[in-house]
Amino acid sequence: MDVSQEQVSMTRHPNLLQHLNKRKATDMPVPYQQTFRLDIEKTLRALYVVGTVLKVNLNRSAPPTSKYFSVQCSPRVQYRITPPPLESGTLPTSLNGNTMLLITMDTASEVGNDSKLSVMYYGEKTEVLGKAVVHLTAVEISLDVDADRDGQVERNNPNKGSWMWGPNGHGAILLVNCDSEHTYGKRRDSDICEMSDLKDMSPMVLRTSGPAKLPEGYKLTMHISQGDAESVRVFRTRSTAENLLYKSFVKDYPLVLGSEDLSKEVPYLGGNAEMNFYVEGLRFPDKDFEGLISISLSLLEPSSPGFPETPIFTDRVVFRVAPWIMTPNTLNPVEVFVCSTSDNYQFLKGMRRLVENSGYKLKVCHEYMNRGDRWMQVSSEIQLLGPDFGYVTRTAYNVEVSSLDSFGNLEVSPPVIVNGKIYPLGRIIIGVAFPTATKGRNMTKVVQDFLWAQKVQEPIALFSDWLLVGHVDEFMTFVPAPDKKGFRLLLASPDAGYKLFRGLQNDGHGQAKMFDGLEEEEITVDEILSDDKLRAENNYVQSCIDWNRDVLKRELGLDDDDIIDLPILFHVMEENRAVAYYPDMVNMIVLGKNLGIPKPFGPKVDGRCALEAEMTSLMEGLGLCCTYIDDFASYHKLLGEVHCGSNVRREPFSFKWWNLEM
Amino acid sequence: MDVSQEQVSMTRHPNLLQHLNKRKATDMPVPYQQTFRLDIEKTLRALYVVGTVLKVNLNRSAPPTSKYFSVQCSPRVQYRITPPPLESGTLPTSLNGNTMLLITMDTASEVGNDSKLSVMYYGEKTEVLGKAVVHLTAVEISLDVDADRDGQVERNNPNKGSWMWGPNGHGAILLVNCDSEHTYGKRRDSDICEMSDLKDMSPMVLRTSGPAKLPEGYKLTMHISQGDAESVRVFRTRSTAENLLYKSFVKDYPLVLGSEDLSKEVPYLGGNAEMNFYVEGLRFPDKDFEGLISISLSLLEPSSPGFPETPIFTDRVVFRVAPWIMTPNTLNPVEVFVCSTSDNYQFLKGMRRLVENSGYKLKVCHEYMNRGDRWMQVSSEIQLLGPDFGYVTRTAYNVEVSSLDSFGNLEVSPPVIVNGKIYPLGRIIIGVAFPTATKGRNMTKVVQDFLWAQKVQEPIALFSDWLLVGHVDEFMTFVPAPDKKGFRLLLASPDAGYKLFRGLQNDGHGQAKMFDGLEEEEITVDEILSDDKLRAENNYVQSCIDWNRDVLKRELGLDDDDIIDLPILFHVMEENRAVAYYPDMVNMIVLGKNLGIPKPFGPKVDGRCALEAEMTSLMEGLGLCCTYIDDFASYHKLLGEVHCGSNVRREPFSFKWWNLEM
Repeated sequence: MDVSQEQVSMTRHPNLLQHLNKRKATDMPVPYQQTFRLDIEKTLRALYVVGTVLKVNLNRSAPPTSKYFSVQCSPRVQYRITPPPLESGTLPTSLNGNTMLLITMDTASEVGNDSKLSVMYYGEKTEVLGKAVVHLTAVEISLDVDADRDGQVERNNPNKGSWMWGPNGHGAILLVNCDSEHTYGKRRDSDICEMSDLKDMSPMVLRTSGPAKLPEGYKLTMHISQGDAESVRVFRTRSTAENLLYKSFVKDYPLVLGSEDLSKEVPYLGGNAEMNFYVEGLRFPDKDFEGLISISLSLLEPSSPGFPETPIFTDRVVFRVAPWIMTPNTLNPVEVFVCSTSDNYQFLKGMRRLVENSGYKLKVCHEYMNRGDRWMQVSSEIQLLGPDFGYVTRTAYNVEVSSLDSFGNLEVSPPVIVNGKIYPLGRIIIGVAFPTATKGRNMTKVVQDFLWAQKVQEPIALFSDWLLVGHVDEFMTFVPAPDKKGFRLLLASPDAGYKLFRGLQNDGHGQAKMFDGLEEEEITVDEILSDDKLRAENNYVQSCIDWNRDVLKRELGLDDDDIIDLPILFHVMEENRAVAYYPDMVNMIVLGKNLGIPKPFGPKVDGRCALEAEMTSLMEGLGLCCTYIDDFASYHKLLGEVHCGSNVRREPFSFKWWNLEM
Repeated sequence: MDVSQEQVSMTRHPNLLQHLNKRKATDMPVPYQQTFRLDIEKTLRALYVVGTVLKVNLNRSAPPTSKYFSVQCSPRVQYRITPPPLESGTLPTSLNGNTMLLITMDTASEVGNDSKLSVMYYGEKTEVLGKAVVHLTAVEISLDVDADRDGQVERNNPNKGSWMWGPNGHGAILLVNCDSEHTYGKRRDSDICEMSDLKDMSPMVLRTSGPAKLPEGYKLTMHISQGDAESVRVFRTRSTAENLLYKSFVKDYPLVLGSEDLSKEVPYLGGNAEMNFYVEGLRFPDKDFEGLISISLSLLEPSSPGFPETPIFTDRVVFRVAPWIMTPNTLNPVEVFVCSTSDNYQFLKGMRRLVENSGYKLKVCHEYMNRGDRWMQVSSEIQLLGPDFGYVTRTAYNVEVSSLDSFGNLEVSPPVIVNGKIYPLGRIIIGVAFPTATKGRNMTKVVQDFLWAQKVQEPIALFSDWLLVGHVDEFMTFVPAPDKKGFRLLLASPDAGYKLFRGLQNDGHGQAKMFDGLEEEEITVDEILSDDKLRAENNYVQSCIDWNRDVLKRELGLDDDDIIDLPILFHVMEENRAVAYYPDMVNMIVLGKNLGIPKPFGPKVDGRCALEAEMTSLMEGLGLCCTYIDDFASYHKLLGEVHCGSNVRREPFSFKWWNLEM
C-alpha cells in the first residue's frame, strides 16, 4: 500500500488534540505526549498508545534546504500541525524551525502496522527532497485500580495515579495482609496458598486491546521503585496460554513484583483482554513510610540492534495502605478472647457467664497455645493471629523493651470533636513517662513512631509511668452512654474512694471490712481512713491522675461532666510506683451495655459491697449493667485485672478511614 | 490575715472565665485548665499561672453530709461557680455532686502567697462542717518564639505551639547550623565558640513575672522528646546571678538541651525578666524527620515529701527546620568556585576572564585544599564548607555509592507552574536508572529520600544511567530568558547536531575538520556523516534524551518552544553508555547573562567554529553572551566539562519557603 493510494485524512481537530490548547483554561488532564522522530532514510514502524499524542518536530528530520512539507495518512490516523499554518487549504505547507506535527489515533488496531503516515519534504521550488514514512500500530493499554473506592475496578480512572483524602477524594486502598491463613504460623513467603489470601489483596487489572501480539521487540513491563519494594507484592493470574501449555510449570498465581523483582515483563494478551493482578500490602504506614505505593506499567520499544530498549509509555496507579486502626469500647463486640490457665477457673467462669449472657462468642485460648501467658490484653491487642485478624510486630532498635510497650498501655477513645476538629475514629491513647522526667520507662520509640504514622487516630500521650505496671488501662477506660458525647470517660479516683470511705465512716460503718472471705488480711474502713501514709500515697496518685485528666479533657474536648470518677484507692510500692489497693474496677471489659468489672471486695453494708453499690449506681445512670468478676487470686494479686486478662474483637467503624479530611 | 477579714470578691464573670462558655460558639483558644484540689484538713499553698484556670470539684473535698458552701477570696482572685447557682445573691450556695469552682487571677504576684481563697462547707442547717484554705501565688510564664516570622520574638503568640505553611500560616523557623565557623573542620560538639554561631540559631525567650523567687519546691524545666533530641540543641545566656557569682564556672552560653539532656531545670529569674535561649537545628528534614521540633517548658510542683514532683503547667513552642534549598541558574551569582590543579591552567584562565568580566568573585581552591580533586560541582554542590555556606553529608546504608550520587547529577529548575500548581522555588532534578531497568546505577536511596523530604522543591527523576558518567548536567541545563517563562531548558540533541552537520555538508563544507589544533585526531564533517555506527549510537542517545524531554515537559509544564536543542553528538562506550563526542556545550556555567561554555572545537567555516556560531546565535536571541572556555585537555578528556569543574553560590530566592502552600 503506497501513501499516494491512501485517502488523506484532513481531520485536524479531533477531541484529544483540542485538549492541548484548552488545558490552560480548563482542568482537563494533559494528554500524555511522546516526542517522536521521523526518518527520511528508512521506513519506521511505531507502536502508538491510544490516548497519547505523538509529537514530531518536522524540522528535525527535514533534509537541508527544505522549505515546504505535506502530510498524508491512512483514515484511522489524525494529525494536527502547530503553529497552525497561515495558508489555509493550500498544500504543501511552509516549514518553520518549530513546526510540530501532532499524531493521534482513536481506536486500537486489529492487526499490526495497519495504519500509515508519511511526510513529504519540498525545496524552494516545491521539488521533492525526501519522504519520511511510518507504519503505525495502535494499542490500548490501561493499568486499572478501584480509584473511586466503590468496589469495582473501573476503566482508566483519570485519578488513578494520585491519592486524596476525604469524601471528595480518590485513590485506591491496599490492605496489609497481616492475618494468618494457617493457625500456627506465617505462610510461606512467595506463594499464595489460599484463595482467602486473594480476598485480602487489592485487585488491579491490566486492560489491553489491539492486535493479538505486540509488534516484534515491543514488550510490557510492570515495575515498582526500590523504596516501595519492601511494602508491596504483586501477583497475577495465569494467562490462558499458560493455563493450556504450561500449567504444571507456572504457579496458579505467579509472583510478579516483590523485594527481589522490582521490574518484570508481563504478558500482553491482545484482543480485548483483561489480566487480573492481586496487590498485597506488606507493612502498615510507619515513620519512614507514608503509606503510598506506586505501581507502573511501561511499554518498551526496541532500539537499534545492540542497544537497550527504551520506554515510550508509562501508566501508573497509586495505592495507600490502610492504616492500623483500633476499635473503642463503644463499638459492638464480635468475639471475646480469654486465656485458660491452671489457676484462673474462677475468672473464666465469671467471664463465660458475662459473655454468654451478653450474647457474644467467648474464645478460650488454652494453655498449650498461650504458653502459660494469662495476659490476653497485654500481649495480644495487636498480635492475635487468625483468619481476618491481623497482627503487627515492631522490632525495637537498641532499646530495652519495657512493660510500657504492652498493649494494656494502648487504648483508643470513641469518636470526638476537639476545638472543631473531628476525629471520627477516635484517638489512640498511650502511656509514657512524664515529659519532664529525666529517667523513666517509655513506650519504645518505634512503637510510638508506628502509632503516630497511622495518622487517622492521632495519638495522645498520657503519663502512666507512676504505676508499677505502667498501663493506662489501670486508671482509665471508656463506656458507652446514651447522652452527651455518646460515652463517658471513667477515671480511677482516690479522692472519690476517700469520699466514699469517709461517708461510710460517717454513717457508722467504720468497722465494715474489706477483703471479706478472701485469703487476704481484712481491713476496716476506720483503719483505712486513719492510715496517713496511705492517704499521702493516694494524694500523690490523685495528682498524677489529675494531670492525665487535664490532658484528656484538652485532647478529647471533654467537659468535667463527660468524666465519672470511680472510687479506687492505690498504694505506692518500690520506686514510688503505684498499684491498685483492691481490684481495680476501671480495668473492666465492655461488651455493649454489659460491663465485666473486677469484683472489688469492698466493705459490706447490709450485706452488700459498698464499692459495687456505688459503681453499679454510677453505671446504671447510663443504662449499663455491671457484672462483678472475681479475678482476685488469678489476676489482681498478679497486678492485673479483667481487662488485662481478656481481649475483644469488635465490629469495625462504619466510618471509612479514607473519608477523613487530612 | 484571716479569710473573714478579707474583702469578698464577687467578680463572677471576668473575661477569661467567660471564654469557657463561649468557646463552642467562637474560635477563641481554650484556656489551659488545671484540675485543682482543696483540702479541709490542711491549709494549701498553690502556684497559679496567669492565663490558666484552676478548676475545683467542690464536692470532692467536702466533708460528708455537706449541703451548702460559700467562697471567700482576696481582691486579686476571681472565681466562678458552675453550674451557676440557682439562688441569686444568697449565701451559702447549694452543693451538688458536680459543682465546680473556677479560679483565676489577672496579674502576677509581687510576693509569694499574697492571695488567698477559702471555701466553707455547711450542713443541712447551715452549720459549719469544715473549711478549705489555699494561699495563692500568681506568676506569668511564657516560652516565646518568632511565630509570626517578622524577626521579633513576640510575647505569647497564640499560634506558637503549631506550624502552618503559607502566607497566612504561622510558626517559627529553625536554621540547620551546617556551616563551619572554622575553616578546616567542624566545631566542637557542645560549645558555642563564636558569636557568629548564635546568628545561625533561632532566638527563644523565656519571659516570667512574679515574685523574686518561686515558692519552695517549685521549679521550671525545659524539655524535648527523645525523637527531637537528635535534631536540635538549645543554649541559653547566663543569668545575672551566674554572671556575678559563677562567671568562671559557667560557660558563656551553657547547653540546656541536646541528645544527652532531654530535660533540664532552667533558672526562674523573677520580677519582669527575660532569659534568651538559642535554638540550633542539627539536621535537615529527612525521610524519618518531617522537620517539626517541639520545645516545652513545664512548671513542676512539689508533692508530699518523698514523692516525685508533678507538672502543673506546660508551655510549648514549635519550630520547623528550614529545608535544604537549591538555587537555579536564573538566580544571580555571588561567588564562583573553581579548583586549581597542576594541569588546568588553560581552563582557569578562561574561567577567571569570564567571571571577572561578569563582575563576580572567583574563588580558587588550591590543590593542597582540594586534594587533587578537580570536580568542584561533583563533590561540592552540597558540601562546601565555610561561614554561611552549609554542607550536608548523607551516609548510605549498605549501598554501593555510585557516580550517580555526585552533584552534577543534581540540578534545580527555575520557578514553574505545572497544571496550575505553583513551584515558586522550582523543582529539583536528579538522574536515576530507567524505572524498567532491572539493573542499573541509581542515586543512593538515602540521598533520594533526603531530597524528597525537603518538600519545597519536589524532585523530578530523570533517566541518566545511559551516560557513562551518568549525570543530568551532561544533557540539560537552564538559562535565563527575557520572555515566556523567564527561562529556557537547553537539551543536548544529536538530531540537532546531525542537522547542523548535514547542512554544512550540503553547503560544501564536508571537508571541514573537527578538533582543529588539538592533540586529537581530526575528523571531517563528511566522515562524521558517513559513520553508520555513530549514527546508530546517536539515534539511541536521542531516544534517551527524548524520554527525558517528555518527562521534563510534563513535570515542569513546558511547551516545546520553552526548549532549545543544542547540536551535540555523543558516542557510546562500554556497556552501552554514552559520552559527549566533542566538548559538551550544555555543561556550561551560567553567570547572569554570561555563559561559560565548553569550547566545542567544531568544524570551521570561514575561520569560525560552526558549533560556536550556532550556539551563539541560539543564545543571542535570549540576550545571553557566550564565552567559550577551553576545557578539552583538563576536563573533556576526563569525561567532564565546565559545569562539572566549577560551582556557583547564588543569591537566595526572594520567595520565602514558608510561604509555600503545602
